[in-house]
Amino acid sequence: MAQAETVNEYLVRRAQEVNGWLEKFLPAESTPPETIHRAMRYSMMAGGKRLRPALVLASGEAFGASAEHLMPAACAVEMIHTYSLIHDDLPAMDNDDLRRGRPTCHKVFGEAKAILAGDALLTLAFNVLAARLSCDSDRKVRVIAEVSRIAGTIEALIGGQVADIENEGRDVSAQTLEYIHRSKTGALIRGSVLIGGIIAGAGQAELEKLSDYGARIGLAFQIADDVLDVTASSEQLGKTAGKDQAAKKATYPAVHGIEASRRRALELVNEAVAIVSGLDAGTEMLASMARFIVARSS
Amino acid sequence: MAQAETVNEYLVRRAQEVNGWLEKFLPAESTPPETIHRAMRYSMMAGGKRLRPALVLASGEAFGASAEHLMPAACAVEMIHTYSLIHDDLPAMDNDDLRRGRPTCHKVFGEAKAILAGDALLTLAFNVLAARLSCDSDRKVRVIAEVSRIAGTIEALIGGQVADIENEGRDVSAQTLEYIHRSKTGALIRGSVLIGGIIAGAGQAELEKLSDYGARIGLAFQIADDVLDVTASSEQLGKTAGKDQAAKKATYPAVHGIEASRRRALELVNEAVAIVSGLDAGTEMLASMARFIVARSS
Repeated sequence: MAQAETVNEYLVRRAQEVNGWLEKFLPAESTPPETIHRAMRYSMMAGGKRLRPALVLASGEAFGASAEHLMPAACAVEMIHTYSLIHDDLPAMDNDDLRRGRPTCHKVFGEAKAILAGDALLTLAFNVLAARLSCDSDRKVRVIAEVSRIAGTIEALIGGQVADIENEGRDVSAQTLEYIHRSKTGALIRGSVLIGGIIAGAGQAELEKLSDYGARIGLAFQIADDVLDVTASSEQLGKTAGKDQAAKKATYPAVHGIEASRRRALELVNEAVAIVSGLDAGTEMLASMARFIVARSS
Repeated sequence: MAQAETVNEYLVRRAQEVNGWLEKFLPAESTPPETIHRAMRYSMMAGGKRLRPALVLASGEAFGASAEHLMPAACAVEMIHTYSLIHDDLPAMDNDDLRRGRPTCHKVFGEAKAILAGDALLTLAFNVLAARLSCDSDRKVRVIAEVSRIAGTIEALIGGQVADIENEGRDVSAQTLEYIHRSKTGALIRGSVLIGGIIAGAGQAELEKLSDYGARIGLAFQIADDVLDVTASSEQLGKTAGKDQAAKKATYPAVHGIEASRRRALELVNEAVAIVSGLDAGTEMLASMARFIVARSS
């Protein structure tokens, strides 16, 4: 009997599949205007871990959907994640030169094209959901409503980035920090888990469990990320290390200390594992991915 | 018997209605994070003509949909139009200080917030379509697919802006100019007309006519806009006049001369009027709006 796949192997396999689908969904570099499509592909195909797509797939497959049905949604959330990175890295925001081990989009294509490439990926995400997702229209509308909410301003992606920028250099309360993390990183991770379940036709009670699981791993992921920013090198991270500290960003270690941060992340992961283990579905991979989040080194 | 409403009166009435709905769809300024919602409202409520929403309404009503059913889509296209203006005005793009008679979003809120306010309006547009539009899910998905396509990169909004930026200061061919206009302004105007028809349940042949009409008035509108940039004052326009010329933008008068530009706009409008007049629907207002486009002074 074959050995069970590790989370690392699972993520590598899923990332390859996702990249294949992204190739299909992204306009060709030869399609005019060429530069914008080159910029979009440059940032999309820079070798991210594809954690969010893997969560869409693991969640949807747990409730019986096929990978093929889930892929448009998996790719859409990765497009939204990448758009947010491109815009966050801009000189007017975090002014970062390095991302996924390569120069950031605006360093290569200039600011105007980077802004537009981000806009274009956000727009394409909704086009892929509306035009490529093959579930029935009611579910599709629910998925689009959810994705547009988590990418928005209220306890969601953009709102988290705003609060993050506004609190740079300030001493933030534990409450503000949780708001930033829950919104900036948490919403999209939680949403990825949730839309997998929606596409698969999971029931309301199951969707609530998936949402609870997603909220916990989303926060755990950001805490782990904050800890890594302090403890890992730029080479390990593929982005500038120590950047949060230098920019006086609101981080978990800065507010709670490194040890308390690690404990909190582990606690959240244990809760997340307990939640999905209680579901009558094939949620082993969701449990393993939760554990992986605190164990990862980049 | 009451006098028929003029296009000007129609637009003023529709703009008031649209503004009332936008008030409902935009997050309150008191909702955290407050600054992003202030920035979104600042740019949205700056008193635009609401031409695109009026086209959604006139087109949808011609085929029997109610204003109430059409309003979420009307507001969504205005959000997308406004997001594109906010991003186009940024220092990295057109670097404009004045819009709709007021300082541009980044002059008031800074670049970071202006980028995020644009992102947020684009995102909110899709949320309003998915969560607030009340037609059946199949039509809703069709509308979202269409809106996300016309806001995208291929013969669409972002693609047009890219081509516009890339051709600044160059002598462009008549063909490139038409590509820019068809994409940057034309796509959203054509799309506004089309989605009104989709929501109202117009048939395929009718939708094709609406699309043909929309393509013509979209190009006529941009030609008229180019002409106004040369002939009107900043005060009349509510934005910096002569800006296109100063930035050596690709414009219709620059390529074809003012008189030929005026003739071409009139020709397009006559074709547009003929197309909608041939439809078995209440298209009088669509015809009047086409004529208004070349007659306007701001």
